[in-house]
Amino acid sequence: MRRTVFNEDHEAFRRTIRDFIADQVVPHHAQWAEQGHVPKDFYKKLGELGVFGIEVPEEYGGAGETSFKYNAVITEECARAGVSFGGSSVHTALCLPYILKYGNEEQKKRWLPAFVSGEMMTAIAMTEPGTGSDLAGMKTTAKLSQDGTHYVLNGAKTFITGGVQADRVLVCARTAPPSPEDRRGGISILVVDAGSEGYAVGRKLDKLGLRASDTAELSFTDVKVPVEDLLGEEGKAFGYLGQNLPQERLGIALGAYAQSAAAVRFAQEYVKERTVFGKEVASFQNTKFVLADCKADVDAMQAVCDRALEALDAGELTPADAASAKLFTTELAARVIDKCLQLHGGYGYMLEYPIASLYADTRVSRIYGGTSEVMRSIVAKSMGL
Amino acid sequence: MRRTVFNEDHEAFRRTIRDFIADQVVPHHAQWAEQGHVPKDFYKKLGELGVFGIEVPEEYGGAGETSFKYNAVITEECARAGVSFGGSSVHTALCLPYILKYGNEEQKKRWLPAFVSGEMMTAIAMTEPGTGSDLAGMKTTAKLSQDGTHYVLNGAKTFITGGVQADRVLVCARTAPPSPEDRRGGISILVVDAGSEGYAVGRKLDKLGLRASDTAELSFTDVKVPVEDLLGEEGKAFGYLGQNLPQERLGIALGAYAQSAAAVRFAQEYVKERTVFGKEVASFQNTKFVLADCKADVDAMQAVCDRALEALDAGELTPADAASAKLFTTELAARVIDKCLQLHGGYGYMLEYPIASLYADTRVSRIYGGTSEVMRSIVAKSMGL
Amino acid sequence: MRRTVFNEDHEAFRRTIRDFIADQVVPHHAQWAEQGHVPKDFYKKLGELGVFGIEVPEEYGGAGETSFKYNAVITEECARAGVSFGGSSVHTALCLPYILKYGNEEQKKRWLPAFVSGEMMTAIAMTEPGTGSDLAGMKTTAKLSQDGTHYVLNGAKTFITGGVQADRVLVCARTAPPSPEDRRGGISILVVDAGSEGYAVGRKLDKLGLRASDTAELSFTDVKVPVEDLLGEEGKAFGYLGQNLPQERLGIALGAYAQSAAAVRFAQEYVKERTVFGKEVASFQNTKFVLADCKADVDAMQAVCDRALEALDAGELTPADAASAKLFTTELAARVIDKCLQLHGGYGYMLEYPIASLYADTRVSRIYGGTSEVMRSIVAKSMGL
Amino acid sequence: MRRTVFNEDHEAFRRTIRDFIADQVVPHHAQWAEQGHVPKDFYKKLGELGVFGIEVPEEYGGAGETSFKYNAVITEECARAGVSFGGSSVHTALCLPYILKYGNEEQKKRWLPAFVSGEMMTAIAMTEPGTGSDLAGMKTTAKLSQDGTHYVLNGAKTFITGGVQADRVLVCARTAPPSPEDRRGGISILVVDAGSEGYAVGRKLDKLGLRASDTAELSFTDVKVPVEDLLGEEGKAFGYLGQNLPQERLGIALGAYAQSAAAVRFAQEYVKERTVFGKEVASFQNTKFVLADCKADVDAMQAVCDRALEALDAGELTPADAASAKLFTTELAARVIDKCLQLHGGYGYMLEYPIASLYADTRVSRIYGGTSEVMRSIVAKSMGL
Repeated sequence: MRRTVFNEDHEAFRRTIRDFIADQVVPHHAQWAEQGHVPKDFYKKLGELGVFGIEVPEEYGGAGETSFKYNAVITEECARAGVSFGGSSVHTALCLPYILKYGNEEQKKRWLPAFVSGEMMTAIAMTEPGTGSDLAGMKTTAKLSQDGTHYVLNGAKTFITGGVQADRVLVCARTAPPSPEDRRGGISILVVDAGSEGYAVGRKLDKLGLRASDTAELSFTDVKVPVEDLLGEEGKAFGYLGQNLPQERLGIALGAYAQSAAAVRFAQEYVKERTVFGKEVASFQNTKFVLADCKADVDAMQAVCDRALEALDAGELTPADAASAKLFTTELAARVIDKCLQLHGGYGYMLEYPIASLYADTRVSRIYGGTSEVMRSIVAKSMGL
Repeated sequence: MRRTVFNEDHEAFRRTIRDFIADQVVPHHAQWAEQGHVPKDFYKKLGELGVFGIEVPEEYGGAGETSFKYNAVITEECARAGVSFGGSSVHTALCLPYILKYGNEEQKKRWLPAFVSGEMMTAIAMTEPGTGSDLAGMKTTAKLSQDGTHYVLNGAKTFITGGVQADRVLVCARTAPPSPEDRRGGISILVVDAGSEGYAVGRKLDKLGLRASDTAELSFTDVKVPVEDLLGEEGKAFGYLGQNLPQERLGIALGAYAQSAAAVRFAQEYVKERTVFGKEVASFQNTKFVLADCKADVDAMQAVCDRALEALDAGELTPADAASAKLFTTELAARVIDKCLQLHGGYGYMLEYPIASLYADTRVSRIYGGTSEVMRSIVAKSMGL
Repeated sequence: MRRTVFNEDHEAFRRTIRDFIADQVVPHHAQWAEQGHVPKDFYKKLGELGVFGIEVPEEYGGAGETSFKYNAVITEECARAGVSFGGSSVHTALCLPYILKYGNEEQKKRWLPAFVSGEMMTAIAMTEPGTGSDLAGMKTTAKLSQDGTHYVLNGAKTFITGGVQADRVLVCARTAPPSPEDRRGGISILVVDAGSEGYAVGRKLDKLGLRASDTAELSFTDVKVPVEDLLGEEGKAFGYLGQNLPQERLGIALGAYAQSAAAVRFAQEYVKERTVFGKEVASFQNTKFVLADCKADVDAMQAVCDRALEALDAGELTPADAASAKLFTTELAARVIDKCLQLHGGYGYMLEYPIASLYADTRVSRIYGGTSEVMRSIVAKSMGL
Repeated sequence: MRRTVFNEDHEAFRRTIRDFIADQVVPHHAQWAEQGHVPKDFYKKLGELGVFGIEVPEEYGGAGETSFKYNAVITEECARAGVSFGGSSVHTALCLPYILKYGNEEQKKRWLPAFVSGEMMTAIAMTEPGTGSDLAGMKTTAKLSQDGTHYVLNGAKTFITGGVQADRVLVCARTAPPSPEDRRGGISILVVDAGSEGYAVGRKLDKLGLRASDTAELSFTDVKVPVEDLLGEEGKAFGYLGQNLPQERLGIALGAYAQSAAAVRFAQEYVKERTVFGKEVASFQNTKFVLADCKADVDAMQAVCDRALEALDAGELTPADAASAKLFTTELAARVIDKCLQLHGGYGYMLEYPIASLYADTRVSRIYGGTSEVMRSIVAKSMGL
């Protein structure tokens, strides 16, 4: 069905991104996957291309766009080509909103130009070993020094996408213990310089998929973080985190949709090229029916995402609506991509075929940004249950 | 998510329909289901209410609306209350488009006023015993008489919704045999008077669900049909039938969405009222998660239907898009309604609870208007498979 | 795969039952479904055939078999023909074990001969309006009279299969209130004469399926039940009920397996007889693949049931194993039967085709005998969760 | 449920294997996965342990067992520990049956002692680029030399498990072209020495899972294969290949069952250790219900496999029964393992947790040994479709 969410500017941007991916990403992506991260230099290319500055106001070197649709285009184009931009989506879709919304003027001036150029890559450290989606249970502490000039940060974080290469990390830490009546209070965000003493990158985690983006453990041992690097108000981070979640989750939903659409496209191409038992694979009724089911599912995912995208740009996307969209699309994407892999036969199991990477990559979308179980809890609560 | 497809006029119409259903339908529906049809008198009430004239031009006594959204509202409200208007949707959503598009001026003047008032109820007879979704395989014949004044109709039809009570039936028949190069040619539509000699209503079929609408077999033995009752051009009906299918299928998709939304609402109410093992059923995590999944699915169905509804009104709904929407929504509705029934425990199996009827009713939506298998074939063809 | 659970005696019995069904049931079953119960006279025929006495010791007029396999054969043959024996399975599979295990000598002599002949049909009343699977929550009371000669029974029960026609009903009632430390204590079974004063059959419930077996509400207003009709010890019924559940649940699992096998057989026959688009339905790859999936599922259900049947006869079937078998088979049967119905196209929605009844009938198997949710709780507990 | 397929000898063997895995495999497996194959030396340890000689007659250095149950034990124990023995299962379960059944006395004496000791590892080369499950379509040729002393082998094979390390490879090749009436004729098996001139190991394929076993492409350029290395009769290999498929497919089914059982065990342990939102993950109803569903599924897989295992040992396992078992277990295993991964949250995506490897490993089971689509075709044919 004709999509109505993208205008001519978005489509022009899409063409730019598609060309960039074909020229600068596809030829190198297998190697990046092998080594487990993109080269730092590549982030600067993304900076030059303007990818990091889309939503940054012009006064700090960005384009000052307020629509999430440009990010949606990038998500779609990466999925379409079966590639990723490493930790780039964390940089723009997760970290940037916090800096824009809660950073003070001094911080924005200090951080954003390098953010836009790709010289200062950011990551965000929320999850701790043993806490999963339960942020209120975090144990990392940041104690204000006697003289009030800095925080002393101690603790450990895990599952940090882009954590190996990040220059600054938004670390969520307890600046005060939880109170019995509000276990969510007392959490703050510190924008920690990765060069600080006591800051250590732990193991790089070997993941099932998303092989071109590094995921790491971080540990902090008496790391001194200047009070100037506190983002927003002390103790209010839990509320901050909640506010950006709808956009983050819609981003994951869009990725799930785009991966599914890509999977269908890969399968369509494959079954038309291949013959088995003397017939084109595409000519078997099973092939047709399986792909038709997948297409109907992709159409539905697109309808869900497009509607949510309009709502987000209109400032109307509720947490429950975003959770519903993430739950629906990521669960369905898993089934669609699985079917498309199966149509590839043995080749579907070989990583040189993009469908195999998609299969491994998509599995995390039901987990990160809040698991499907968390999404169900949010939706149920919105239903009065 | 906030819906944008309905304007204030649609919502006012919705309130009228909702009140009408509460007053005129709900108190009698169990009895109608028991007897297997709605009373003929009820159709006149629908006529008075204006339900049959929505899309009929004003010159023939209708309201002259061109949007399908009013029909969508009726579909949603019936599902919401767990009731049906008998063969009413066949009358307006299936038969009317053919009369409006292919009827000549004389026919419209002759038929439409009684159509609008509910005095002349219509049905459509396409399927034959043994042909299923394969219309080109039909065997009913209509031979032009020597003097060219009438057709002589012979054959049998089955699965005619509203067939017992219809006053006129749009009968698809072969006015010429299929040719080897075009097995779809030679089919015509005759608008047959149910009072004609040789016209017989066969068995009323006992269905799994949809118990308040009658479904019948019809047989024709040398029925004389005046040439004035030929709809459109002779031999071109297959093409006519194809043209209205997107709207018909979107109607079914909307019904599947609305039934699912109703099922979730029934389940929500039930689990809040009931306790088991000393706890409200709503308080179990399983209840919450199951209903959250259902809600996310209903949200997706709504997004799909709303987008298709806009496309239909804009004249842009392709056959493949309609097939995709019907396939997606009807298959998913089956799973959603099944889960909502399960949450009712033993009561879900009792027909006094609307969820039980919904379960039985919804099963046909994957079959009629073209089976899911036919939908998959259409979608696959649109993918170049 | 070759089955090893049945020996030549079982197979001879199978032939007898199959012939009996063809002669005495199939010709009448549609009418029984229409009227909502089998004729009382039919139960006497089953008595003559020996169906009710299989597991009754010879001294009380039965055959003294100890294996459950004969009952399994009856279940399989009924499903195979798409018929039911009304409330017969409740009589033998549910009620009999309690009488045999907990009845005293005087009771057995008094009740069993008429039980075997079909002159005294039994039913069991456990569920109450509002309690569902939570037996400990029951509110029906039975108070011992001052003189100790009888209980005074008050309360209401629902979902009583065979309740309209039963001559004696095993009613579970509280002879003592629950204690805080044991809410399951204080429940007793009274074998109540349906002719007693104050005993009333309430509404016959209109069900989605199982139309040839009556399901009723019962109410008791100061019904005097002689102490001689107390089954087993006072206050210990909860434990009694638990002990027979594995057999009851295996019976339901066997039914689900047998219904699925029957559905596949019906679909196989249908697709070979029908042509669509000029081809046998059986010749489409989709038909083949769908039926192959169903066959593999039926094979698995058979393996599960046969293993459990051997375990039951060996006295080794644990509650968790029975719950696992019921959960697995009934959930899978729903999907298999749904697919087989779909292969029937529009005919699958017509009750004259046995697949339509199977679809409606099988839905209850995930609810009665303990819902799938209860089965999951039992299995989870056995896993230490 | 108590299993009856294994006797005390099997259980003693199980204990030996379990200890061996704990001592000799688990400490090294992560490294083997990293490097993409097990060390050649490890195969000799397996030889010493007797793993390769189980089914080899005593006169050639083996134990002379005829039951497949010992192989089943190995499969179960590897899955239980989340490890593999590299190409070992190809060596014993795929290659050995051909050598035993079709090898002549001279060949057995020449090959089997080194086969048993692990000094001569074997692999089998059937699939070619572009043929998938369609063996009759192979293009590799073996032409008899003028003097009749050797074949000249030309062609390419792919998806060769153990192909990098194999010392001898059973290569399927056309010794005669297919005839129109029998496209399956003309295929022979040559047991090719990996040291032959013109024999080349191509790319090692990077797979989604099964990372500790190497999978390679092989190419043959005028490889001279002595006629003494022809296995069985010339031109009859297609029939040979068919005969061993039931055992091969049951082996895969057993693996799918054992992987599922292992996944449930891993998840059970995980959810008992972890807390989230202040509660043990195991205490959530969703956790219990999901694991209970998985357990019921694993119980069913076990019943299917055990029954098939008995049938195989009794010489009664038909191709359709084996296909049914493979189809059922591998499709279900995918869903079970997916659910168990999800219960691990973010850790489920990390390869250090065995569930992540299981997820990637199990995906191939629906593809190799014949895809699920091929299984469906076989089962459908056995149903007369």
